Amino acid sequence: MNLSALSKARAGYRPKLPQSLRKGALNVQVEKGEATQSIKDQAKIQEVFPHTYGAPIVRFNEGKSAEPKALTVGVVLSGGQAPGGHNVIAGIFDGVKSIHSGSKVFGFKGGPSGLEECNYLEITSEIIDQYRNTGGFDIIGSGRTKLESTEQFDRCAEVVVKEQIDAIVIIGGDDSNTNAAVLAEYFKAKNVPCSVVGAPKTIDGDLKNKYVETSFGFDTAAKTFAELVGNIQRDANSAKKYWHFIKLMGRSASHIGLEVALQTQPNICLISEEVEAKGQKLNDVVHYMADIVAARMQDGKKFGVALIPEGLVEFMPDIKALIDELNDSMAHYEKELNAIEEMTDKVSKVCTLISIDSATVLKSLPVGIQAQLLLDRDPHGNVQVSLIETEKLLIEMVGKELKSRGKSGFKALNHFFGYEGRCAIPSNFDADYCYGLGFSAAILVKSGLTGYMSSISNLTQGIDNWKAGGIPTTMLMNMERRHGEDKAVIQKALVELDGGPFQFFVSKREEWAKTESYTYPGAIQYFGPAEVADQATKTLELEHQ
Amino acid sequence: MNLSALSKARAGYRPKLPQSLRKGALNVQVEKGEATQSIKDQAKIQEVFPHTYGAPIVRFNEGKSAEPKALTVGVVLSGGQAPGGHNVIAGIFDGVKSIHSGSKVFGFKGGPSGLEECNYLEITSEIIDQYRNTGGFDIIGSGRTKLESTEQFDRCAEVVVKEQIDAIVIIGGDDSNTNAAVLAEYFKAKNVPCSVVGAPKTIDGDLKNKYVETSFGFDTAAKTFAELVGNIQRDANSAKKYWHFIKLMGRSASHIGLEVALQTQPNICLISEEVEAKGQKLNDVVHYMADIVAARMQDGKKFGVALIPEGLVEFMPDIKALIDELNDSMAHYEKELNAIEEMTDKVSKVCTLISIDSATVLKSLPVGIQAQLLLDRDPHGNVQVSLIETEKLLIEMVGKELKSRGKSGFKALNHFFGYEGRCAIPSNFDADYCYGLGFSAAILVKSGLTGYMSSISNLTQGIDNWKAGGIPTTMLMNMERRHGEDKAVIQKALVELDGGPFQFFVSKREEWAKTESYTYPGAIQYFGPAEVADQATKTLELEHQ
Repeated sequence: MNLSALSKARAGYRPKLPQSLRKGALNVQVEKGEATQSIKDQAKIQEVFPHTYGAPIVRFNEGKSAEPKALTVGVVLSGGQAPGGHNVIAGIFDGVKSIHSGSKVFGFKGGPSGLEECNYLEITSEIIDQYRNTGGFDIIGSGRTKLESTEQFDRCAEVVVKEQIDAIVIIGGDDSNTNAAVLAEYFKAKNVPCSVVGAPKTIDGDLKNKYVETSFGFDTAAKTFAELVGNIQRDANSAKKYWHFIKLMGRSASHIGLEVALQTQPNICLISEEVEAKGQKLNDVVHYMADIVAARMQDGKKFGVALIPEGLVEFMPDIKALIDELNDSMAHYEKELNAIEEMTDKVSKVCTLISIDSATVLKSLPVGIQAQLLLDRDPHGNVQVSLIETEKLLIEMVGKELKSRGKSGFKALNHFFGYEGRCAIPSNFDADYCYGLGFSAAILVKSGLTGYMSSISNLTQGIDNWKAGGIPTTMLMNMERRHGEDKAVIQKALVELDGGPFQFFVSKREEWAKTESYTYPGAIQYFGPAEVADQATKTLELEHQ
Repeated sequence: MNLSALSKARAGYRPKLPQSLRKGALNVQVEKGEATQSIKDQAKIQEVFPHTYGAPIVRFNEGKSAEPKALTVGVVLSGGQAPGGHNVIAGIFDGVKSIHSGSKVFGFKGGPSGLEECNYLEITSEIIDQYRNTGGFDIIGSGRTKLESTEQFDRCAEVVVKEQIDAIVIIGGDDSNTNAAVLAEYFKAKNVPCSVVGAPKTIDGDLKNKYVETSFGFDTAAKTFAELVGNIQRDANSAKKYWHFIKLMGRSASHIGLEVALQTQPNICLISEEVEAKGQKLNDVVHYMADIVAARMQDGKKFGVALIPEGLVEFMPDIKALIDELNDSMAHYEKELNAIEEMTDKVSKVCTLISIDSATVLKSLPVGIQAQLLLDRDPHGNVQVSLIETEKLLIEMVGKELKSRGKSGFKALNHFFGYEGRCAIPSNFDADYCYGLGFSAAILVKSGLTGYMSSISNLTQGIDNWKAGGIPTTMLMNMERRHGEDKAVIQKALVELDGGPFQFFVSKREEWAKTESYTYPGAIQYFGPAEVADQATKTLELEHQ
């Protein structure tokens, strides 16, 4: 590898551990609390998890633990990349090695399918040293295979028995951690001597609760996007001629948009959860934006910056209905529709197949967006929502609305940030947090605990006060309707409209709309004063005030 | 202003000056060299600049200079933003204040039009202190008005006489510095007692030569883009499922693309200058890219990263011819064409108006790109090349080509980076370089020199060895055909195909195409080890080896 100067310097960074872990995993005492309950649907969740439900929260305190024992731990990276994944593995590695120098870490390649297929790499200190404090999941690769079926679980059981693996650590988002809990339950039911532990990963920030204060990667990704948004704001405020409509990754939840807004103070930031709660249709959102653009024009300002969450359109009742109807009708009339070549003819035909309301919405959309709805379908025939260029849709619709009001001079540029932040070099916060999560996972494994997620809490109180431990995954669960079935799943943490971060945003957004209250966070700093290099997110700060 | 933590920390950064300027502008001796010549067309350039042609290069040495004198200097920011503009102004401010505490700096607002209209802000130390080491041009704003006509020059003369301005410093790119030289000549011819001095700005890096080693802003912008490209590479190499086609700002020259490639080592980087030199048509470029994509597929790698310079299409002979013909015919048949609604009909009609070759090219393009060529025209009826989504064009064409070869599984995502870097917080290099350029401009002004650009050279030798001085702008000039007329202009510095940076790239690119030699530069660091925080660009390094 040809390392950049920063990569070389970061290789020497030693992530800080919470106080109680600093003397190594053999000097940690596990303190078990009371039995726990799931957040909702307790009886049903218990039914699904008879062997693992109700386990206690555990805390790690400094103390003397049991005898050293060599452990073999398998690690899986699941789903989209998030900064810090490599440090979780480094934490596991150092953790199990501090328990016994004969411990081994196997990295299953290419995500959960690597576990099923027993395709792994033994992680040595030579290997892990190349990946400490780096971004990406390239040490073993990631994948999106879901471990859900009994056949898959049986294959996993075969692998762990054959390879004498004491524990699997699954580093993933809410769905992957749900599946990890199901696998833990399955192993316990079948007496497979292997625990399953999870680590909370996702840049989207929607895997968190009272005990898992944030998912890893959110800090670095949001700061990277905030850097770019800040730079664009400064450009807008210098050139004074463009609006910039910026879409930010985050399909289900708008935490990223909100955090970036808190860091940069743009003129507009849409929050999907609010749009849904208020039942705002596309036109409502367009009017809201056009009002702000027009008011700024009135003040002689033809520029501004608007943040748009990636999943927005799915939260507007009219567009959601349209997409649902398109998914049905396009699957049903696939052949007839494929035979029609001209886009305008295709739209006309589709409009006869869906409700009048949805047809009206479809016809009102720009041609490019119509094409994205009708042409770009996934292998199941569904509209690919992630490919819809919502930022361009809104530029066109806001432009049309302003024209209809007799306002001219609205010029806008579009941006989309997602891949730019998912593999950034982890911030000091994420480097430390991830290393601690991995180290804690090693202690959970050593303690024979299964169906747990590793947890570091008290994150806003300075690393000397961080608390390490584990949370039984069933605690985070509720029943949800998925593909026509009730399923026990980890509840997604959406933006809470009565929570600190959103309420702070609401208290400021009218002022930000009118003014240039822009803040310019700049690039993530790994060196320098602590207030620059070691700050947590505004979201964490406002949630724990 | 609500400052970010980094902005607060950067406010305290004290840019380093070249050795000879460290005792203040009153302790600098100006050493004049021999008379100079323009790089080409000497007789003609001298004809255009009878009063300012042939001035000597000047060097600033430590020593005793003449008596203090209060100076009034007007500053103009011209054209697109580049990181460090505020530091040029800070350097001028501190420079003239170190000459005499009664000196004044006026910042003309909104670019060159502010000078014509006498619209300025007096820059006080309270104001400048808020902008030290910050990105953007928002202290006074920028603009694209060109000062070219005699009427404009007369208005400028009125302003400088009325406001008793001793000198104007124009901070701009090649065209703005050309115009600054013309204004300097005009003032001298008309005995207007005001000198005109320039500072070399542009993120594109195409304003440089032996004496002006780089334009300011290039360093920071390229590093910001390299951060993002590196992050995307790490994502590609982790997920292993997408190609990323990334367009980078830089219309005329591909310095940015080349520098980012040198910093990140992607699988493909197109260089417009090479495409032009080899006469590569669109299909040649598509084949070149498809060959690399196919070869990687052969090795089981369905992912990669390709860098594409913004101006690429204008350097392909077939697309250039098409654009030229479209500009002619669309202006000529505007009404007829506007009357046609359907895109396919419009294309058919246009094809009857242009050459058969160009019609064939137009028909071969994806519908979206046809629309961009035919619909998005500037106020003069010309195709807006900067709006052509070359990155999407190449994704579609490469995809088609691969299909025709029976290769499936090519999936690609597109990105465009430009606005993300133009207003970034200047790197230590740009912060120091710009401050030195501004300080040197103050000394040029004090010395009554006009028609000069301020210059800091020896940039790869460590700041203690940086040399400050000034270069007569006519030295950089040649005659070029512009809008049907021969004009004396600064020659654009394109990527030299026999130069160090390009030759190094050529020696590596085949290996980079096949492998994942990716380097991950990460975010710009303002603190930390010098090799991380104070590195110059690879371009500078390879040019001065």
